[in-house]
Amino acid sequence: MTFLDRLAAICGPDHVLTGADTDRWSRDWTGMYSGRPLAVVRPADTAQVAALLSLAHDTGTPVVPVSGLTGLTGGAHAPGQLMLSLDRLNRIRRIDPAGRIAVVEAGVVIARIHEAAAEHGLIFPLFFGARGSAMIGGALSTNAGGSNVLRHGNTRDLCLGLEVVLADGRVMDLMSELHKDNSGLNLRQLVIGAEGQLGVITAAVLKLKPMPRAYATALLAVPALRDALALLNRLQEETGGAVEAFEYMPRNYVDGYLQEVPGARPPFADAHDHVILVEIGATAPRDATPLPDGTIPVVAQLEQALAAMMEAGAVLDALVAQSETQRRQMWAMREAAADIHRHWLPQVESDVCLPLDRVADFIDLTLPRIRAYDPDATELTVAHLGDGNIHHVVMPGRDDPALSDRIRETVEDVVQELGGSFSAEHGIGKEKLATMRRRKDPVALEVMRAIKAALDPKGILNPGKVIPAADGQG
Amino acid sequence: MTFLDRLAAICGPDHVLTGADTDRWSRDWTGMYSGRPLAVVRPADTAQVAALLSLAHDTGTPVVPVSGLTGLTGGAHAPGQLMLSLDRLNRIRRIDPAGRIAVVEAGVVIARIHEAAAEHGLIFPLFFGARGSAMIGGALSTNAGGSNVLRHGNTRDLCLGLEVVLADGRVMDLMSELHKDNSGLNLRQLVIGAEGQLGVITAAVLKLKPMPRAYATALLAVPALRDALALLNRLQEETGGAVEAFEYMPRNYVDGYLQEVPGARPPFADAHDHVILVEIGATAPRDATPLPDGTIPVVAQLEQALAAMMEAGAVLDALVAQSETQRRQMWAMREAAADIHRHWLPQVESDVCLPLDRVADFIDLTLPRIRAYDPDATELTVAHLGDGNIHHVVMPGRDDPALSDRIRETVEDVVQELGGSFSAEHGIGKEKLATMRRRKDPVALEVMRAIKAALDPKGILNPGKVIPAADGQG
Repeated sequence: MTFLDRLAAICGPDHVLTGADTDRWSRDWTGMYSGRPLAVVRPADTAQVAALLSLAHDTGTPVVPVSGLTGLTGGAHAPGQLMLSLDRLNRIRRIDPAGRIAVVEAGVVIARIHEAAAEHGLIFPLFFGARGSAMIGGALSTNAGGSNVLRHGNTRDLCLGLEVVLADGRVMDLMSELHKDNSGLNLRQLVIGAEGQLGVITAAVLKLKPMPRAYATALLAVPALRDALALLNRLQEETGGAVEAFEYMPRNYVDGYLQEVPGARPPFADAHDHVILVEIGATAPRDATPLPDGTIPVVAQLEQALAAMMEAGAVLDALVAQSETQRRQMWAMREAAADIHRHWLPQVESDVCLPLDRVADFIDLTLPRIRAYDPDATELTVAHLGDGNIHHVVMPGRDDPALSDRIRETVEDVVQELGGSFSAEHGIGKEKLATMRRRKDPVALEVMRAIKAALDPKGILNPGKVIPAADGQG
Repeated sequence: MTFLDRLAAICGPDHVLTGADTDRWSRDWTGMYSGRPLAVVRPADTAQVAALLSLAHDTGTPVVPVSGLTGLTGGAHAPGQLMLSLDRLNRIRRIDPAGRIAVVEAGVVIARIHEAAAEHGLIFPLFFGARGSAMIGGALSTNAGGSNVLRHGNTRDLCLGLEVVLADGRVMDLMSELHKDNSGLNLRQLVIGAEGQLGVITAAVLKLKPMPRAYATALLAVPALRDALALLNRLQEETGGAVEAFEYMPRNYVDGYLQEVPGARPPFADAHDHVILVEIGATAPRDATPLPDGTIPVVAQLEQALAAMMEAGAVLDALVAQSETQRRQMWAMREAAADIHRHWLPQVESDVCLPLDRVADFIDLTLPRIRAYDPDATELTVAHLGDGNIHHVVMPGRDDPALSDRIRETVEDVVQELGGSFSAEHGIGKEKLATMRRRKDPVALEVMRAIKAALDPKGILNPGKVIPAADGQG
């Protein structure tokens, strides 16, 4: 029996794909990671995943787990390798509206969880652009972030329980619905964000939250980025921590938006150096129920707060959305980042995180340092400012891989000097393996290797990613 | 040079204690775990901790890390062993009010962090009875809970960064201030709650939060515990998630309080079966600033919500604190648990967690099942209901260790049937090692053992606790 026959004996022949049938899995969303896998195997349930991994372990076959293929760092790249697709594990097993949990399988698309929760007036507060194709297994494996981390945390903060198939096919049952569970090592948080290095996530228990009944959304212009943190802190206090998003767009971002996006209009009469999108979510009827004159209390509250801030000179200008249409326009500007820099080639893209009070330092330091050796370099910045998370793209002055590498190292230098991380929410995958080696605490790397070796002694799970090898071979 | 001389060469002779000088470390808060350690060594800084562990590793000497000795499961019990006390690592290195973080060493007493944060109008939202002597290192090692987990999470949710000395003395630097950091395995969350099995925490970066400007606190009587979850969900929506505590006291708890605590007075004119203490924290001036008539808006808001619930029959009676004195009286009733059952001997104490909607099932099932074989058994229950966390004490009908063991197993059976955990917030330590073996997913135990062996191959860190040995001897 060939290896493919053995796969087919587990999943059925229809679910072992090769050749042109694997087209869908042969390039990812970024287009940067392409190549035909040896085969794609599509198990139907946890038992089949376990049988497949047991076979892979026995035969020493590398396995690349994959769900929605929307990762940004090549974590599911598998040219010539066996891909284990979780897309058929796609059941929402249960929604418990009173306990506010959803029990889902790894292959459920995130937007489906949103829809299922909405039927009960609840949200699953994980929102990012790819939510219509990204699956929860991948979001958990990469600890995905998005626009609502400020209020609700990353994916790891939204997960109560997990089912994991280990490298050798053993099934680890951590499917807890509990908000407290101090029973030994926290293996759930170890597997979340491990990008498939320690096991394959097959199911999860997720937290749901009340759906905001109204939003107050505004664009603000501020005199200096350095003052923005005080504004955020003040808005958090004013709203009891209901700030859902606090997003930063500098002048060149707004300019890029106006140039690149058809129909885009300037948000303010004057051009401003620093624009912030802020959104408050109101779950309380007293904040969300329109008054007799049509005013929505949470919107009025934000207007008053901003008026006071303008009075004090902390805000130069402000525009509060008066309708859902206006709110969507504001978000469209924020979400246009990929459109703005899509023509930038080559580009050096970074997803970095800084201490909240060092974001302005990062922006002040980085481009001048690059321009010292590449005077024509251009920069685009947009940030989840409330999290200290900057998406940063540099277009070098010329197409030269060595120059791009140098720029990448400069960005990493500044991040390291300021106590930041070279990966905020996109993960490591293949793309940042060299950076991990250069920048991560060496003892932490040793510990990661020791844990990897303990749980996947043959190194079959998603090899060549995330954890750089000790010998420098990567 | 003797082993003690070598310890003294690292820390100075004044900081290696033996004999009567170790009295303070020879019994813990519970009084259940006593016995003189071989020696207590009190390093001054991380470098000394590293040198001590390096020595212990080279010589194969077991080491028991200890900070405030306020654990409830014997996690720091070290008769005849070497205790490594973190109490001299007691510096608050930095408070950053804008970034809302505190950088502290492991031996800082939690109440000192509260005081330091309060100077900036901030809180470190970890509150439990022992906060005046418990140290942050121990709280992190045990992932301590307390009264505000509902709003702010457990200790692990309040920690951004960690410094850890590994079993062989290597120092792992995870001292991040970042709110997002997806750079490989999450080693911080692995070490938090590991009860000293994987390394010794020497420093941490903690999150601070805005200090509530006012509280609204009330006692409610509800017709059925089963309905309480709907009340909590409604109060969360009404307040935008500002419920800080939702604590349950059944009738026998209130009766015990009235009998055992001098000066205690009945909260309501009528006796009720189910009493809940609820507290809302208001950070917004609009909620906290007294109106011209002296009314505090958040208090009025809670009164209105409760009035509506009484109208609907969901609440039978309610008492809203009108002063800080009244608020403290309400909390005093909740915090009297230890006083109420202090004379119960023997007692079988459990700290269990249930899915939020199964708490009532646990209470309905447990005592009847025990009384089937021990008709005189008595029960005391008090719960962090918003977290599904029940502190449960049974006084058996007679003093018979076999009967106590049977009761413990019955409680565990019910917890397991309902999808709960046998340890919510107190951890495993020595006390629950046998329970871990019986009840924890066996694959999860295998994974814990593999990680322990990978990071502490000689098994010198806090041996004989938390992770039961594979051979049944542990």
